[in-house]
Amino acid sequence: MNIQDKIKTLAQLDTDLFGKDFLLTWEKSDDELKAILEIAAILKQMRDENVSPKVFDSGLAVSIFRDNSTRTRFSFASAANLLGLAVQDMDETKSQIAHGETVRETANMISFLTDAIGIRDDMYLGEGNKYMREVAEALDEGYEKKVLPNRPGIVNLQCDMDHPTQSMADLLHLKNEFGSLENLKGKKIVMSWAYSPSYGKPMSVPQGIIALMTRYGMDVELAYPEGYDLIPEIVDIAKDNAKKSGGSFKVSHHMAEAMKDADIVYPKSWAPFHIMQERTELLKNKDMAGLKKLEQKALLNNAKFKDWEYTEEMRKTTKDGDALYMHCLPADISDVSCKDGEVEAEVFEKYRIKTYHEAGFKPYIIASMMFANKFKNPVAVLQGILDSGAKRVRF
Amino acid sequence: MNIQDKIKTLAQLDTDLFGKDFLLTWEKSDDELKAILEIAAILKQMRDENVSPKVFDSGLAVSIFRDNSTRTRFSFASAANLLGLAVQDMDETKSQIAHGETVRETANMISFLTDAIGIRDDMYLGEGNKYMREVAEALDEGYEKKVLPNRPGIVNLQCDMDHPTQSMADLLHLKNEFGSLENLKGKKIVMSWAYSPSYGKPMSVPQGIIALMTRYGMDVELAYPEGYDLIPEIVDIAKDNAKKSGGSFKVSHHMAEAMKDADIVYPKSWAPFHIMQERTELLKNKDMAGLKKLEQKALLNNAKFKDWEYTEEMRKTTKDGDALYMHCLPADISDVSCKDGEVEAEVFEKYRIKTYHEAGFKPYIIASMMFANKFKNPVAVLQGILDSGAKRVRF
Amino acid sequence: MNIQDKIKTLAQLDTDLFGKDFLLTWEKSDDELKAILEIAAILKQMRDENVSPKVFDSGLAVSIFRDNSTRTRFSFASAANLLGLAVQDMDETKSQIAHGETVRETANMISFLTDAIGIRDDMYLGEGNKYMREVAEALDEGYEKKVLPNRPGIVNLQCDMDHPTQSMADLLHLKNEFGSLENLKGKKIVMSWAYSPSYGKPMSVPQGIIALMTRYGMDVELAYPEGYDLIPEIVDIAKDNAKKSGGSFKVSHHMAEAMKDADIVYPKSWAPFHIMQERTELLKNKDMAGLKKLEQKALLNNAKFKDWEYTEEMRKTTKDGDALYMHCLPADISDVSCKDGEVEAEVFEKYRIKTYHEAGFKPYIIASMMFANKFKNPVAVLQGILDSGAKRVRF
Repeated sequence: MNIQDKIKTLAQLDTDLFGKDFLLTWEKSDDELKAILEIAAILKQMRDENVSPKVFDSGLAVSIFRDNSTRTRFSFASAANLLGLAVQDMDETKSQIAHGETVRETANMISFLTDAIGIRDDMYLGEGNKYMREVAEALDEGYEKKVLPNRPGIVNLQCDMDHPTQSMADLLHLKNEFGSLENLKGKKIVMSWAYSPSYGKPMSVPQGIIALMTRYGMDVELAYPEGYDLIPEIVDIAKDNAKKSGGSFKVSHHMAEAMKDADIVYPKSWAPFHIMQERTELLKNKDMAGLKKLEQKALLNNAKFKDWEYTEEMRKTTKDGDALYMHCLPADISDVSCKDGEVEAEVFEKYRIKTYHEAGFKPYIIASMMFANKFKNPVAVLQGILDSGAKRVRF
Repeated sequence: MNIQDKIKTLAQLDTDLFGKDFLLTWEKSDDELKAILEIAAILKQMRDENVSPKVFDSGLAVSIFRDNSTRTRFSFASAANLLGLAVQDMDETKSQIAHGETVRETANMISFLTDAIGIRDDMYLGEGNKYMREVAEALDEGYEKKVLPNRPGIVNLQCDMDHPTQSMADLLHLKNEFGSLENLKGKKIVMSWAYSPSYGKPMSVPQGIIALMTRYGMDVELAYPEGYDLIPEIVDIAKDNAKKSGGSFKVSHHMAEAMKDADIVYPKSWAPFHIMQERTELLKNKDMAGLKKLEQKALLNNAKFKDWEYTEEMRKTTKDGDALYMHCLPADISDVSCKDGEVEAEVFEKYRIKTYHEAGFKPYIIASMMFANKFKNPVAVLQGILDSGAKRVRF
Repeated sequence: MNIQDKIKTLAQLDTDLFGKDFLLTWEKSDDELKAILEIAAILKQMRDENVSPKVFDSGLAVSIFRDNSTRTRFSFASAANLLGLAVQDMDETKSQIAHGETVRETANMISFLTDAIGIRDDMYLGEGNKYMREVAEALDEGYEKKVLPNRPGIVNLQCDMDHPTQSMADLLHLKNEFGSLENLKGKKIVMSWAYSPSYGKPMSVPQGIIALMTRYGMDVELAYPEGYDLIPEIVDIAKDNAKKSGGSFKVSHHMAEAMKDADIVYPKSWAPFHIMQERTELLKNKDMAGLKKLEQKALLNNAKFKDWEYTEEMRKTTKDGDALYMHCLPADISDVSCKDGEVEAEVFEKYRIKTYHEAGFKPYIIASMMFANKFKNPVAVLQGILDSGAKRVRF
């Protein structure tokens, strides 16, 4: 489809994204999610066809990361750069940011000439998303009281609840692999826990996936060993979504069983809800000995489930023996990145390039979220870019 | 006032800012300071009205920070970006810069394609400003000997003597609050020491404030507990300025007394001159035990002056019970950021948003200093920007 | 010569640089090296004459540094910025990159919207250049399999074998000092080991110099104390080059003798090959005690050769007592940066500004390598830039 047709599709959607932060997919309407996908696809195609969607002549995009991340950092930087914004990192080591009373001050201090803020804060259960909302409120006040000339839009780059840039990139990948969102109806996707030698991986990916994919009429199965529950409220959202969309949502506790006849599989480790709760308390109290103990307990428990590895044998039981394997990367690949991991090397290798394609949508999803936030009429702006004939490589 | 009128005002000023570094306000003429304010205001209004003052198509703005600072870092980055320069940080951890013989080499190595250098070096008494002048000399030589295609302009982002981007932003804030520089005549401003649980805060803010505000016919009162003196030479500058400008300058040692009838109050902690002298010696000798001892001594002495807190009660004694409260942020707010601090929470909250406005001028002051340094005829360039119709948000 | 004439010179060269990484000078033809010099000179002249060669409207230039480097970091940033690319650093502290299996994944993850990647990896013998080729292969695969919309070009910013951006900047400096590459014929250049109080300096500079300068008909002499050998294969390349170019290549072991009648001298410390081999093994095994021992042994051995210092006395024996002194900087200057060093302060001071000029070519060499990689027809693009009338300082 050419860009023009995509813009026409976008024009038919009823959205209210202008000036709204992107924090959780379940706060957005179906049309709004479609619009994010559409704008992302348009921006990607523009880049591929050497059209430059540089809508800003200047302006900052601030990234606030509470942990390290090559992938998300580069995705954010790419998105900002594509639209014309310069990235300014706000690492805690470089600055004085903190939770609590100083948030509202700092939020304003970094925003005088800022158009977008990306925040990654997935360390503490019950904190990351809350922090983003604190920043948002501070920005609202700053804009209202004329401290800020415009209200920077916030993009959630991963929190304790959701990882919307990941799940939306995953959705765009599925749309491309299966031809359309409509084609996802009736497809079986298995979001499965998988063994990893590490401990404490965030729950935001599985939560994001089940909450999002249940909106497209898919049969979503969440498989994990007893005890590895996710946040209950988010599981409820998935259940509701499945009902509304005419799909299904099921929780099960046997990996190999779950994989049977799957169209799509997403085997990935995470830490159980109750461990994350304990961990958050210990972290808050800076109880290092307690954390060490918890880690040992958790790893010991994990070790019981080394057979939760996505294998060639399992793959053969999936739909046509060829379920689309997905992962947010990096995966724990058995005998490659670790001894026992989430996936057999042979299987991973088969879908490796596809996981790269999957990851490749993320910069455009982020750019799309920024874009939708800043323009009241994205259709007109995208058309304007096309008409302007601006080239990315100028000569 | 519209931009056009501001440009006309600027045109009437007699300045020699082109190619000159901005290191100390007292090295600049009255017209030059006015020009900096005027250009800053024009750049701000351009940004607000979606005019893009991106005068550089490429070029670096190098920041050299010897301590961490979110606020100044972001202000510098915003200023550079607004004018079209990319920020390149020169953190000491990332590089090999040092005082002494290597300064002149490094200054050239980072400047081959650089237009502006912002330096923050406020750790050592007698060193920060000296270091900037060392860099400046090295750049002069590099430019003269054709090592550098142009001479980057230096902006002092805080040194041991002055904090001109802060004091000039403060002045622009006052101009806006009171309507004009002329209206500042006869106003009483109190720069007061205030209690803080921390130790060793630089003297550059109070020094910058008294040296600058005495130029506008204000009644400037510097209040601090006995012993918390500033650098004597800079106090003398304030005295001279007051005489010339028809204002007054007074040193006093009772906070509550000083605040009476004040139009503007600036309560802020700093370390006394003699402590800073001792500290500098100890730092140079890397005498960690000595530093620890000095800190204890200083904190113990500070603790005698916990009543140097700007309170609601004091506020009521100011002009109309509503003196404009100023602070360079972050303030030590009692019961918020610390138990006992510089200001009562209730008072701070009343003026909180105004302190944000105050801070919001800093990016534009920095941009203005860069701008004035690079263009022989800023009036023509600003007019050229307006005429070009360049938009910041392009669509 | 004006830019137009330089473009004409470039047009006569037969090159195949488009889409090719720049990893080793000896993989490039004579015409290709000439083209890199010519493009660098054109870009420099454009910058000097306020023409803006900003060929990219957006895009990232990724820098991967395995050690700290102010100079190269700033050169890379300047080059990227000049062409319109935003720098995104990939410090290991900030990310999850590693040798081995994850290289191919990370290489793709950082490249979705990336045009150029600069890599500095000079720590391990036999590793740095290999790593670059691993990245290159991963990028080839990513581009071929449509993971990447374009193939980022790699520039070697220093590896265990070569330091092509340094040696090519040095060559451009020589071309400027002596008028032309042709004029270098018959000139004597001495690449000499020199004493330094530090240990383990990479061999890439001397290796790069002897492998490159032997191509221009010069009499290249490599002087070092017995035992301080370079990688034998690269010495062989120098020998071959000398034969082909009609120059000469000679290894000797007496500094003062070597310097006699030299036109150009390059006294610089390095660690011997066998020490580097041992060091690499120890580093791989994380044998810290072994490394400590090796360092002591190496320093002890170095100390025998404190008289390998380039002195005023030696200088007087060079051609007309005025051989061009070169150094990649920073030099170990006796009684300045250290007690005993590579060069006497008095001598260094005489050529100090010239070493700055030498260094000043590096940003343009890097920009040239990026440029040549990205454009099939650099002549047309350079002409297009000229014709467009784009200014760097816009007003």
